[in-house]
Amino acid sequence: MAKRGMLIVLSGPSGVGKGTVRKRIFEQDDNKFDYSVSMTTRKMRPGEVNGKDYYFVSKEEFEQEIANGGMLEYAQYVDNYYGTPLKYVNEKLDSGKDVFLEIEVKGAMQVRKKCPAGLFIFLTPPDLMELRQRIINRGTDDMATIDKRMNKAKGEIEMMQNYDYAVVNDEVDKAAEKIKTIIRAERWRVKRFLPDYKKHLGDELK
Amino acid sequence: MAKRGMLIVLSGPSGVGKGTVRKRIFEQDDNKFDYSVSMTTRKMRPGEVNGKDYYFVSKEEFEQEIANGGMLEYAQYVDNYYGTPLKYVNEKLDSGKDVFLEIEVKGAMQVRKKCPAGLFIFLTPPDLMELRQRIINRGTDDMATIDKRMNKAKGEIEMMQNYDYAVVNDEVDKAAEKIKTIIRAERWRVKRFLPDYKKHLGDELK
Repeated sequence: MAKRGMLIVLSGPSGVGKGTVRKRIFEQDDNKFDYSVSMTTRKMRPGEVNGKDYYFVSKEEFEQEIANGGMLEYAQYVDNYYGTPLKYVNEKLDSGKDVFLEIEVKGAMQVRKKCPAGLFIFLTPPDLMELRQRIINRGTDDMATIDKRMNKAKGEIEMMQNYDYAVVNDEVDKAAEKIKTIIRAERWRVKRFLPDYKKHLGDELK
Repeated sequence: MAKRGMLIVLSGPSGVGKGTVRKRIFEQDDNKFDYSVSMTTRKMRPGEVNGKDYYFVSKEEFEQEIANGGMLEYAQYVDNYYGTPLKYVNEKLDSGKDVFLEIEVKGAMQVRKKCPAGLFIFLTPPDLMELRQRIINRGTDDMATIDKRMNKAKGEIEMMQNYDYAVVNDEVDKAAEKIKTIIRAERWRVKRFLPDYKKHLGDELK
């Protein structure tokens, strides 16, 4: 049986830029893990591709999937559902592949409970005012939506303590590089490493 | 008051090459932490420098330092004392500097108890037979000493589970690079990062 893969979870306040950072990581050729595409009921934004950025589904389809027990995690944000279909993640992990999730903070906490051995990385804004500016610059949300997001972000930053690592998204390249460094280092953590090593030493330890 | 530095502990079975790996790390120009020179009663080997590789002292001097409470950790190996003077480590950490210790496994466990927030890295041999070969190649120890070391090494490898990370010393350059990656990543661990980040956000969170 193959060694089970590592579940890597990137999360952070909405608007912090986790989608951009995740894409930068996956654009690089040394990337060895699989990205788990999320499912959402929110509207597609210009440039987004169905099945690549998200699986874009209707509210009814999403709620059916929840009812079927088919979601590893899901949450409602600003009146839309976001979530991770369970099937793909399990298949990849079982085959020994590492799986990378980029999800909202409420969902990340659901995954933490189900998969405590996962690697949880929180992407933070340099400060809340810059988060606000980013949301304004995006130009796709009205002020009421932005204020809702700001209030949520304050609570989300308090949630940072539920993560293993926190990376400030001051520059996309830097943040992507830091996340890759964390993932590399994490492979040598004793809790992940020791079972294999004992097997490798084999008879010497008897 | 300055933020207290990070205590980095590199340990592993004797003969695994932790001195060589530590030197490689410190030869590199991007190294930013201070090395805490250990104290020992063992004989100086060719090429070693007093005050750089170790503080070489007599058995009587070492035991006087223990009696004075001046050792962060110490242990007896193959009839010699090895240990870390406390004063230097505390001064550096208090001034915000990271301190790097390269010490024996028994000593590392003493430090773990006193400084649980430290970063503990275990250097492992690719396998025990290679450890044996390395000890033979060193050409400075007789077979009885080597057998004593081998038996001890088996127990030490079992101790790996008391460390945060384990790095296989298959090649010195690779091992040094992995240790540097771990130290980099560890700076973004939430338990080290969150207090500073909260301070930085300041009024925004009130």
